[in-house]
Amino acid sequence: MARDWGTVCQEATSRFPPLLFYTHSLISDSESLIARLRSGDPRALARAISAVENRAAGWSELLQAIFPHTGKARVLGLTGSPGAGKSTLVDQLAKHYRKENHSIGIIAVDPTSPYTGGAILGDRIRMQDHCSDPGIFIRSMATRGALGGLARATADAATVLDASGRDLIMIETVGVGQDEVDIVRLADVTIVILVPGMGDDVQTIKAGIMEIADIFVINKSDRDGADRVEREIRALQSLATRNDHWTPPIVKTVASEGVGTQKLADAITDYEAFLRKENLIFKKNVENWQERLVEMLRDAMLEKARARMEENNGSLERYAAEIAQHRRDPYSLVEQIVRGDNRK
Amino acid sequence: MARDWGTVCQEATSRFPPLLFYTHSLISDSESLIARLRSGDPRALARAISAVENRAAGWSELLQAIFPHTGKARVLGLTGSPGAGKSTLVDQLAKHYRKENHSIGIIAVDPTSPYTGGAILGDRIRMQDHCSDPGIFIRSMATRGALGGLARATADAATVLDASGRDLIMIETVGVGQDEVDIVRLADVTIVILVPGMGDDVQTIKAGIMEIADIFVINKSDRDGADRVEREIRALQSLATRNDHWTPPIVKTVASEGVGTQKLADAITDYEAFLRKENLIFKKNVENWQERLVEMLRDAMLEKARARMEENNGSLERYAAEIAQHRRDPYSLVEQIVRGDNRK
Repeated sequence: MARDWGTVCQEATSRFPPLLFYTHSLISDSESLIARLRSGDPRALARAISAVENRAAGWSELLQAIFPHTGKARVLGLTGSPGAGKSTLVDQLAKHYRKENHSIGIIAVDPTSPYTGGAILGDRIRMQDHCSDPGIFIRSMATRGALGGLARATADAATVLDASGRDLIMIETVGVGQDEVDIVRLADVTIVILVPGMGDDVQTIKAGIMEIADIFVINKSDRDGADRVEREIRALQSLATRNDHWTPPIVKTVASEGVGTQKLADAITDYEAFLRKENLIFKKNVENWQERLVEMLRDAMLEKARARMEENNGSLERYAAEIAQHRRDPYSLVEQIVRGDNRK
Repeated sequence: MARDWGTVCQEATSRFPPLLFYTHSLISDSESLIARLRSGDPRALARAISAVENRAAGWSELLQAIFPHTGKARVLGLTGSPGAGKSTLVDQLAKHYRKENHSIGIIAVDPTSPYTGGAILGDRIRMQDHCSDPGIFIRSMATRGALGGLARATADAATVLDASGRDLIMIETVGVGQDEVDIVRLADVTIVILVPGMGDDVQTIKAGIMEIADIFVINKSDRDGADRVEREIRALQSLATRNDHWTPPIVKTVASEGVGTQKLADAITDYEAFLRKENLIFKKNVENWQERLVEMLRDAMLEKARARMEENNGSLERYAAEIAQHRRDPYSLVEQIVRGDNRK
């Protein structure tokens, strides 16, 4: 058993998708994989996420099979600038929810996270902490592969975690870039983390992020400038009202000392109660699925286009070379492939 | 003439894509638009970029028509953390290249840039500086729309600038997030900007960015810690050799005072000479076009999938609702749409 956990923790800290030694066996024993996944077995969980992330043979069938068992988990999204203390806050929340006997999945899609890229220079101490607790499963998503967007990979990983019975999923992501905005939008509750004394923090992350916050956290709030950050958030909030008329609360924390974790958990509970009361959960779900469908269709149709190119003896490499030589224009080529008549 | 420039500058500072008042007229006068674009007319340039960015009717034909006139511009990509001084450095380079009579296009895809989102709290003084010089055209790309990725929009804007005779294009983007990595990869020369005293800067932006740097800049190098940043870069460089055996030089600048601009320009020239000597320009071009083709195919095929859904009386909204109710699984649905048999 101890050895199993070692495997999981090792994989979670790996910066690259694990090699698919088990790709071949996936379909043949998919029923047993699904059964073990649903029983909460962390090795089956790690295997299933890898298979889905890397689109190993049978990935779509696997997701089809587990889909009926999903939709139960609460999903929290946490985002903020590098250095805002996201991982520490996620740790504190994980400890908090473990005391309430929740089973937790953490997806870290932050290149600066100690779970992912940051681990190289950062510390792995907290990682090891969690690895002794089978109630917490941590998975890193450091880079986007050629097989589809980071948002898709994250959403699929969350679906697998959900099917495995993890009832609380936290997605941690750095708050800059459209990919990250897309990821956080998949969460039921979006928490934006700011810190005082980083100069222009509110300004830095505001584009696209400030408006998706359901809850603001001012972490490291024992530092000078916490009140200024709060005033800035209030000022931004006064400029616009949300369609649902929710005013995101501002919670001050010092995550490294566990200060404010209970208040944050309360704020999360409050917002979830609000969502239920206003019947917004279904609406949010529909919106999320619209976005996921677009992403899924985009990837699947691209695969089809690739297959079509190959049928016609074309290849990306050859076309790209012809374009670089100005012997072919890319815009007509794309139109031809989409129509299905990209002959030589 | 002064009024024309006013229009361009106004549009460039706008955070949202301009309304397409001229969509309707695009095709009917596309020949004259192309002629004016090629003559360097900045209003035609702004119009053409908007049309392409928003996929106004005729956007693909426009790109097909101008494609033969592209491939001449040098493209520099500049990336770094928020607050690293990218815009100031771009300004200094722009001034430098203007003295050599280059005609310049700047694309700012940085939500923290004073040209884009940052302008709300930032200063617009430098912006106004440039607006008096018709040799510099600035365009912001603040957000990704529903019509395709930011990387696609940026690449298309660069193509239009190239066709208009701008012979030096600078793309400025914040160095976090996969979108930004994709954007910077389109450049011939990629410049990664670091600053001392921002804590973990090397760590912060390293994931995916450090390895694509052709040149490192340590800006604000009069601050404490510049030597430490340099040592960190050297340490990272010692871990891995590039395939092309180029060792990215480290240039120290104080952009706000114009210090180091000449050295940076020299480093750019050196790298371009290296690319020519090693015959790498064509190779880079082919690689870039492969990535652009993937992005273009992805978007175009998605459009086709959407059309297919509508033909079958489906809609994203309805499917998403059915999925949220667990009455339909999304993975089989996507397979059906791709096959073309998504009946009710």
